[in-house]
Amino acid sequence: MSLDPLSETFAALADPTRRAILSRLALGETSVSELAKPFDISAPAISKHLKVLERAGLITRGREKQWRPCKIEPRALRGVDDWLERYRRLWEERLDRLDEYLRGLQAKEKKRGRKK
Amino acid sequence: MSLDPLSETFAALADPTRRAILSRLALGETSVSELAKPFDISAPAISKHLKVLERAGLITRGREKQWRPCKIEPRALRGVDDWLERYRRLWEERLDRLDEYLRGLQAKEKKRGRKK
Repeated sequence: MSLDPLSETFAALADPTRRAILSRLALGETSVSELAKPFDISAPAISKHLKVLERAGLITRGREKQWRPCKIEPRALRGVDDWLERYRRLWEERLDRLDEYLRGLQAKEKKRGRKK
Repeated sequence: MSLDPLSETFAALADPTRRAILSRLALGETSVSELAKPFDISAPAISKHLKVLERAGLITRGREKQWRPCKIEPRALRGVDDWLERYRRLWEERLDRLDEYLRGLQAKEKKRGRKK
């Protein structure tokens, strides 16, 4: 099944090992064997995860045969950020409304306090 | 397979129909039949997508038997936003570096222009 780019990105991120790989790569590029060290999974399994990340454009790999360093491509995450934008407004509006409601409650409390 | 909450959210978002459903629900709550209208897929298929979104906490559904309106829960997307935060810094840094590089080029061009 071929996914649209944004679905591909989300699918690639839907795995804790792949997110941990990205988190490691955010510190700098590194080799596959170095990447595999903290994980209790086989080298082929790591390679599979890297392929998924590479297909989604989230990482690139060097061309050298012996040393193919992996590098994060954070720009690929901008699609996710753009998509989030309109929803961010939604939850911020809700927080504003909650804030307004709480201020209303406080004002009422104050009034009641004065009446006592 | 039971996923961690963030993986569940990402997996739920890795589908264009589910993202379109969220986009519709961002306008306000609505019934399943209303939701299904613009999509060329069966009601059971829509229900399946809604279950995935509901399990990920991205929507909730009313309790009324006849009319179970779907409602978006944008707060569930904050996990994605928080996760993105550190990578956002990465791509912004890269843009800054690109900007610096371009300014450097421009300065060199100016110097060269003056020498001619």
